[in-house]
Amino acid sequence: MRAIVAHAAKDLRVEERPVPALQAGEIAVRIRFGGICGSDLHYYNHGGFGVVRLKEPMILGHEISGVVEALGPGCEQRKVGDRVAVNPSVPCNRCRYCLEGRQNHCLDMRFYGSAMRFPHVQGAFRETLVCLEAQAHRAPDNVSLEEAAMAEPLSVALHAVRRAGPLTGKRVLVSGSGPIGALSALAARRAGAAEIVVTDIADGALAFAERIGVDRAVNVSRDAAAMEPYKADKGYFDVLFEASGAEAALRLGFDVLRPGGVIVQLGLGGEMTLPVNFITAKELELRGTFRFHEEFALALEFMGRGLIDVKPLISAQAPFTEARDAFELAGDRSRSMKVQLAF
Amino acid sequence: MRAIVAHAAKDLRVEERPVPALQAGEIAVRIRFGGICGSDLHYYNHGGFGVVRLKEPMILGHEISGVVEALGPGCEQRKVGDRVAVNPSVPCNRCRYCLEGRQNHCLDMRFYGSAMRFPHVQGAFRETLVCLEAQAHRAPDNVSLEEAAMAEPLSVALHAVRRAGPLTGKRVLVSGSGPIGALSALAARRAGAAEIVVTDIADGALAFAERIGVDRAVNVSRDAAAMEPYKADKGYFDVLFEASGAEAALRLGFDVLRPGGVIVQLGLGGEMTLPVNFITAKELELRGTFRFHEEFALALEFMGRGLIDVKPLISAQAPFTEARDAFELAGDRSRSMKVQLAF
Amino acid sequence: MRAIVAHAAKDLRVEERPVPALQAGEIAVRIRFGGICGSDLHYYNHGGFGVVRLKEPMILGHEISGVVEALGPGCEQRKVGDRVAVNPSVPCNRCRYCLEGRQNHCLDMRFYGSAMRFPHVQGAFRETLVCLEAQAHRAPDNVSLEEAAMAEPLSVALHAVRRAGPLTGKRVLVSGSGPIGALSALAARRAGAAEIVVTDIADGALAFAERIGVDRAVNVSRDAAAMEPYKADKGYFDVLFEASGAEAALRLGFDVLRPGGVIVQLGLGGEMTLPVNFITAKELELRGTFRFHEEFALALEFMGRGLIDVKPLISAQAPFTEARDAFELAGDRSRSMKVQLAF
Amino acid sequence: MRAIVAHAAKDLRVEERPVPALQAGEIAVRIRFGGICGSDLHYYNHGGFGVVRLKEPMILGHEISGVVEALGPGCEQRKVGDRVAVNPSVPCNRCRYCLEGRQNHCLDMRFYGSAMRFPHVQGAFRETLVCLEAQAHRAPDNVSLEEAAMAEPLSVALHAVRRAGPLTGKRVLVSGSGPIGALSALAARRAGAAEIVVTDIADGALAFAERIGVDRAVNVSRDAAAMEPYKADKGYFDVLFEASGAEAALRLGFDVLRPGGVIVQLGLGGEMTLPVNFITAKELELRGTFRFHEEFALALEFMGRGLIDVKPLISAQAPFTEARDAFELAGDRSRSMKVQLAF
Repeated sequence: MRAIVAHAAKDLRVEERPVPALQAGEIAVRIRFGGICGSDLHYYNHGGFGVVRLKEPMILGHEISGVVEALGPGCEQRKVGDRVAVNPSVPCNRCRYCLEGRQNHCLDMRFYGSAMRFPHVQGAFRETLVCLEAQAHRAPDNVSLEEAAMAEPLSVALHAVRRAGPLTGKRVLVSGSGPIGALSALAARRAGAAEIVVTDIADGALAFAERIGVDRAVNVSRDAAAMEPYKADKGYFDVLFEASGAEAALRLGFDVLRPGGVIVQLGLGGEMTLPVNFITAKELELRGTFRFHEEFALALEFMGRGLIDVKPLISAQAPFTEARDAFELAGDRSRSMKVQLAF
Repeated sequence: MRAIVAHAAKDLRVEERPVPALQAGEIAVRIRFGGICGSDLHYYNHGGFGVVRLKEPMILGHEISGVVEALGPGCEQRKVGDRVAVNPSVPCNRCRYCLEGRQNHCLDMRFYGSAMRFPHVQGAFRETLVCLEAQAHRAPDNVSLEEAAMAEPLSVALHAVRRAGPLTGKRVLVSGSGPIGALSALAARRAGAAEIVVTDIADGALAFAERIGVDRAVNVSRDAAAMEPYKADKGYFDVLFEASGAEAALRLGFDVLRPGGVIVQLGLGGEMTLPVNFITAKELELRGTFRFHEEFALALEFMGRGLIDVKPLISAQAPFTEARDAFELAGDRSRSMKVQLAF
Repeated sequence: MRAIVAHAAKDLRVEERPVPALQAGEIAVRIRFGGICGSDLHYYNHGGFGVVRLKEPMILGHEISGVVEALGPGCEQRKVGDRVAVNPSVPCNRCRYCLEGRQNHCLDMRFYGSAMRFPHVQGAFRETLVCLEAQAHRAPDNVSLEEAAMAEPLSVALHAVRRAGPLTGKRVLVSGSGPIGALSALAARRAGAAEIVVTDIADGALAFAERIGVDRAVNVSRDAAAMEPYKADKGYFDVLFEASGAEAALRLGFDVLRPGGVIVQLGLGGEMTLPVNFITAKELELRGTFRFHEEFALALEFMGRGLIDVKPLISAQAPFTEARDAFELAGDRSRSMKVQLAF
Repeated sequence: MRAIVAHAAKDLRVEERPVPALQAGEIAVRIRFGGICGSDLHYYNHGGFGVVRLKEPMILGHEISGVVEALGPGCEQRKVGDRVAVNPSVPCNRCRYCLEGRQNHCLDMRFYGSAMRFPHVQGAFRETLVCLEAQAHRAPDNVSLEEAAMAEPLSVALHAVRRAGPLTGKRVLVSGSGPIGALSALAARRAGAAEIVVTDIADGALAFAERIGVDRAVNVSRDAAAMEPYKADKGYFDVLFEASGAEAALRLGFDVLRPGGVIVQLGLGGEMTLPVNFITAKELELRGTFRFHEEFALALEFMGRGLIDVKPLISAQAPFTEARDAFELAGDRSRSMKVQLAF
């Protein structure tokens, strides 16, 4: 079996790995599609992010779909041939956070393709993946495997939307029109947002936002004046999904949010210098959002019922043997939204 | 000017009334469409409901749209010729509830066509309506006046959805497939419900629910067994919109809601005998919902942006001079969803 | 070992039972005090309540404290001699509700002295109790074992308070001044209620409420007029803790609660006939509350820090060998609040 | 009438001012006590804070109590001789925020002694204050006028507590043991906090916190190690009331808060550099809190019922004619908590 392994910044290799034997409750999935995520790009480009650094070779990837090809002892939910999306999140279901229903904060989380713990948790960009049966969710018949591989980033957006509280009738700003920002816009629309404005500094990225039907796309690097009217009377937007990780985006949000407005922080931007007194005086709420849990099943269900359409966001596919080119393409925001590897 | 006046049960008359002079801040609206609501039917059929009874002749009607035909002194927002929906709710904006942002509980509310106070507040089924400029909301260009007259009942549904809390990904049951139940289903879908099941005891009513895209419509009088599987493992649905006012619907809800499930009670059913210990043991929440406030503007906006389509629910229109026939038709659930009068 | 066994209504026996051998993770507790609860009284007086009926002899009791006398293999948290309160609730921590943090709705709950499942879960009114180490919580040094045996009913009250949402500055009505009502008043005060009025139909019960410092105690059978002013301007109270299970108490609540008011239903009253249209028109929220989970540890902590004082509510103690007399006393609301058995 | 007027940084004068004539609905209050607030100190020491600067001479002061000495036409609630606390907040009750019940964000707010708008809103450190009758709240009989002058800062703390959501049983950290921090600790205890730890860098300030009964007071400049254990297992505290405005306090909070923890930001610290990725990864919520509204009446009620005792926090009183000395004393955290002027 071949896998895509990051050794260091810009050192990405297709390598041979053994297929582990199936244990009780495990299945083998023939991977078909794997989406390249922002964190994969960080490992590829910089060898990690913040304090999370590659300390050993690590298979990347956690946005995957495929077909079940073998069942270990005791598996009863899945069948060979099932088309599945695989949830890359494996909480322990025993620690205090899991028993509070906050599995995304599990003290013993194993999340595919993450260098947060050591030894790293190896990822899922590989020809055959052995995982728990419970991780593999059937793709509805009308959901292609390409779409199914979008279940994971859509889950992140759906979790962010839940963190925002009720959105019905709300005016929503999304800063950052990459895959997570665009999916957040889709999820916010699904959740009842009345008006959605998306900002970015790249026209290419904004073109995708327009394609999925947001009400307005603003290039804040070219047209900062467009945001001025939103500052009147203490602000206009009820909610900001901050998906850029850029300090400037957060600062602009402080100006254009109404008193009591909510910021859902998706972007991982490290240290930022912020006028915290705006948070105080306008009673804003800056809320983090981290990964997802039950939203994974929900993402597939929304796609299956035709309630969310992610297809316009899949901008390219490439054979996994050409992973390096695909990673370069994925990193070019002028041309790419979501780039997927085909296995 | 002619108006439709209820004198007593089954005594509905088209009568001549004077047009009041315009005061400062008031406008005159040439009414074009008026939807017949359940409360209008109660006045028509029974002379009232509960303790609310007709004590003097009252013009009915509060779901109205029309065209601005004259402006009183000081009006600056509307223009002659504007196509508008008129908000029938006039809170005082000075009492303690208004200053808490709960205008729907105003201590001095004036709501069109309501016998709750005496003298009654006269309604809006009339050729010319004089109202506050602030009550008249412009219909978006792509919203017909027929649709605009649906803004009021849609507001009720949107308010109910807000009372439910976040709906994204929730499993929703709607009991009662009349106009308010069907609009609640539409609003719940807009708010992100993953799955919507509608129940009723009339196939005609359920046919409309199917037309607006609910996941399942169940005739609980013919097919009670269909609901049995939803009772397993302590229940299935997260939220029930109870729009029938029927005790049996609420009792069924107690069985099929998950622990912690929320019931939004729209239907006005008077005295009901209920197993309250189910509410205790399953920690259900039975929440009332009453009218609306800021949702009126939102209803028009959702229609204008193409996010909610109410057209399939307008089942008939009739000249206002044939009001009695229209009221009889509106009361026949086998044939009617929303019946509108044309002025 | 002797235990207190209910065979049928009014058939309560002190019987000999074997002490089970200690398994891994289990400890033996020498029981010292056991409070008689309303459900114990139902089994004693009526052989059960609602559909929950005694189908085999069952040891009663679930409000217990004692001293650790032996440790099974692998126990590391408790020591022999530890003074403990024992949590009678044993959720599975594996079902879907447990993994949502709603252990009180566990699909495989084992709760001491409950005939909800068959075979019944035997209770804890016994000289020696073998339980999981994790069920035994150390009593703080300044908390007597009599008080520690109040941890369980106090947990119920604390959970009810959490179900109510924020109480700081709220006006609170408590209907029913038995142990659960009185503890709810204490817990509501701890949670910041500004004003607490307690109602009952028995002066004896209300005397205890006055002793714990509520702002007013009203005998609604003698002085219904006292509640009239609370009905003005659509109602006065923000929250009702309904601990009587009486239909009349709930109906009164509908009148004296403000629009948007919350009713936390603790009392198990079976079928009630209610004017549900009041819930709708005033947008009330009727919320069930059922048992507790993490509140058990919290109850001990509040007592240990001197933040809640339950001592005034312990009205009598009797040797467990005189259980029948103690149960009769506990059922006499004119004389008793909480009656405890001493082992 | 004499008043205390700030002309510029360190330029504070006692000046003669005319007493305005009473208009309809107004009363005259003979001021008795006025507490010196942090914002008063900013005007005194620095001529303002952030973008809020003195542009003309301004009477300081907004924490005041006194005795009613005259009634204007139409006043019916207050009587001459009433002992009152005066609410310094005068929202318009007509703008969109007021009609949403968010009067503290009023678009036309007049708040005593504030240079936020120009002309500045003159403050209440004066011998006679003319205000709206509705601003003057009767002090309960058992509340001294010294205590009544604490109603305003206590309102700020009570509002902060409401912004935190339910606190019953929560573990609370308060950073900054000045008047607002200490009052937040008192309010959090009243709201049901199980454990309260207060931090500061000055022993003098912490001594006051100990006097009001917090569970632990930590000098983080001398004993940073004391906070280390709170970082284990992703954090310990549920809620942080950040009352220091210090970047370091907020950063420490990110470490010691549990996932999902809430920070209520009271301190006005201007620009801060923060590791925003902690907010994201731990799903923290940073919420601003600004002034108060209905909490003013509540503060007096809590004091009147003996539920909150602010007396230990009044550290000194001085004649208003010695205002400069009093301001210097108030600014010395080693000696002072709340310093009041006596008129």
